[in-house]
Amino acid sequence: MIEHFTFELQAEDGKSRAGIFHTPHGPINTPVFAPVGTQAAVKGLTPDQLIALDTQMLLANTYHLYLRPGDQLIADLGGLHNFMHWQKPILTDSGGVQVFSLGEINKITNKGVTFQSHIDGSYHTLTPEKSIQIQENLGADIIMCFDECPNPYDRTYNEAAMDRTHQWAYRCKEAKRRQDQALFGIVQGGIFPDLRIQSAQYIAGLDFPGNAIGGLSVGEKKTEMLEILDIVPDYLPVDKPRYLMGVGTPLDIVQGVARGIDIFDCVNPTRLARHKTAITRFGRLNITKKIYEKDPGPLVENCKCYACQNYSRAYIRHLVRANELLGPILLSIHNLHVLIDLSATLRSVIIEGSFQAFLKDFLSKTKENGESQ
Amino acid sequence: MIEHFTFELQAEDGKSRAGIFHTPHGPINTPVFAPVGTQAAVKGLTPDQLIALDTQMLLANTYHLYLRPGDQLIADLGGLHNFMHWQKPILTDSGGVQVFSLGEINKITNKGVTFQSHIDGSYHTLTPEKSIQIQENLGADIIMCFDECPNPYDRTYNEAAMDRTHQWAYRCKEAKRRQDQALFGIVQGGIFPDLRIQSAQYIAGLDFPGNAIGGLSVGEKKTEMLEILDIVPDYLPVDKPRYLMGVGTPLDIVQGVARGIDIFDCVNPTRLARHKTAITRFGRLNITKKIYEKDPGPLVENCKCYACQNYSRAYIRHLVRANELLGPILLSIHNLHVLIDLSATLRSVIIEGSFQAFLKDFLSKTKENGESQ
Repeated sequence: MIEHFTFELQAEDGKSRAGIFHTPHGPINTPVFAPVGTQAAVKGLTPDQLIALDTQMLLANTYHLYLRPGDQLIADLGGLHNFMHWQKPILTDSGGVQVFSLGEINKITNKGVTFQSHIDGSYHTLTPEKSIQIQENLGADIIMCFDECPNPYDRTYNEAAMDRTHQWAYRCKEAKRRQDQALFGIVQGGIFPDLRIQSAQYIAGLDFPGNAIGGLSVGEKKTEMLEILDIVPDYLPVDKPRYLMGVGTPLDIVQGVARGIDIFDCVNPTRLARHKTAITRFGRLNITKKIYEKDPGPLVENCKCYACQNYSRAYIRHLVRANELLGPILLSIHNLHVLIDLSATLRSVIIEGSFQAFLKDFLSKTKENGESQ
Repeated sequence: MIEHFTFELQAEDGKSRAGIFHTPHGPINTPVFAPVGTQAAVKGLTPDQLIALDTQMLLANTYHLYLRPGDQLIADLGGLHNFMHWQKPILTDSGGVQVFSLGEINKITNKGVTFQSHIDGSYHTLTPEKSIQIQENLGADIIMCFDECPNPYDRTYNEAAMDRTHQWAYRCKEAKRRQDQALFGIVQGGIFPDLRIQSAQYIAGLDFPGNAIGGLSVGEKKTEMLEILDIVPDYLPVDKPRYLMGVGTPLDIVQGVARGIDIFDCVNPTRLARHKTAITRFGRLNITKKIYEKDPGPLVENCKCYACQNYSRAYIRHLVRANELLGPILLSIHNLHVLIDLSATLRSVIIEGSFQAFLKDFLSKTKENGESQ
């Protein structure tokens, strides 16, 4: 029996890595892409459909589940895995990002954040201790430190927020009780390399079983994101998984893996599906376009997903235009497949030692396709 | 090889029957309940999920598919079975009922009906010949005669509409070209037993491979529907399947089978699911009610459906309240299961010769439960 939360590093190619992170709900083979089930459900898909997609882990959102149906209710019903009928690994975020983006902020102090619910306007306070308590009630395999994610360009604010995030990370570690959950730290610091290094060093020093990079893909330029990703992983332990939060276009995943990232999540594949858009490794396809009206081909040639194996672009276009639920469902299946399949491919080429060739080829094809992601 | 469109009568118990109707896409074991895929999709469910429910056949709507995406487009893409990835039997209605209920009627003559599309207001004319042409393009296994379904209480109108329906049935038969489709006749006549008998005799005389009863469950009382169902099947051939159109509560199905009906379809199970309602054999359950907030039990005790086997009422209530697509999906799976499973049970008890006992027990339980269907 392998001890929980050990990370087996299986292969490296440049900075890219293939590994296995062991959790109480089974191993996670990295690099991995995690679909998002914000409210304890991936929008429109059953767990059976997610299993068929080779989904290894899901993300769920603490902020949403705390407000509705409530973490205590989920605990009383046996925890998130039982509640949502998902027996593979789950990761919950800390609620931090959502409090700042969805709630109406009332007050931020070093103690925590007071905010109004986006559902009914009721007042709530989240602190590091409260976030951990909620996440222990939810019972995910991986839980996250409560953090603050500010505008990435505001230097003064980022300094203050980073300090708070560090204090809060320490308090989260102190507050944590359950032994069957891994608490990951989060590096912040906006677009400022020196702050990012300082943050990575501090978080690494707290010796979490895994470390995350937060506050990216929040409005900064891609080149700025890459600059941070060029630096931060070097300051995080090699023998712990690295998680790039909320980032997940195909190009982001490839470029993240090239810089030593192991775990990704993003709402984009299911959100784009609800916005009538199919993704490919190198671009996007708006299925409502007239050119697809009579197109008997699949969304993406040679794609192995259920949607592409069984349906034409013409049919999916019809569904989307007729507001049939099956439209976004098939597009979600396809879009998640693209990212999960890409992650599995990255893992294979790293293990085979051919990642650098894959990367070169991928970047040149991306350029050809106009980086339309 | 059994010839297409033969109906093997396997067992009878009173007026109830168990049989097999053979189609180019396989046999249909009756009594059978057909889920409705109006726009070439059962709302929210994949064909895989429908197969898992033991769905034997689907209904699709000619009116909708003619207007969008167009029957010629579906024909060009290999017909409805290929278009929607459903290789079991399909039945299309004639468009008649929808023209009268959804379209803006412009003119009804013996020739046909001119109407405006509910989608874009464009003008169209449906005639018996046109309806058959569209249904031949769609390519279902069972197609229906173009008919008129008036207010069931208006005697004068019902006489005229019935005459037109009879002329149209004859013209549909004349217009039909494809040999791999069975054209069913439709009995009309409102709530008037003498008109219904006259209609059944006329339609039976046209020797269709199956016969339907239309114009029920359209606003008349249940007792009036049963009065018609007590009479009409006696005037329809024993060796052809009988289809009660658009009717499908559990009680309706049991009472229809008791009167010699073999085929049912209804949008209710999926429509109720989208309206937050689970059905049971003897009633309904509004899952949003506060009493289900922490309920760890399934929608229905001992139910074998995917939703009941894996999820609590509390979870489904959460999904529905949070507007998660998975809520109506799980409720649709459950509701369809209830009707498909009931039909299979009816078939078993007819074959075993215990239908009368089942019927007595079912009706007494319905009474106990206040006929809350």
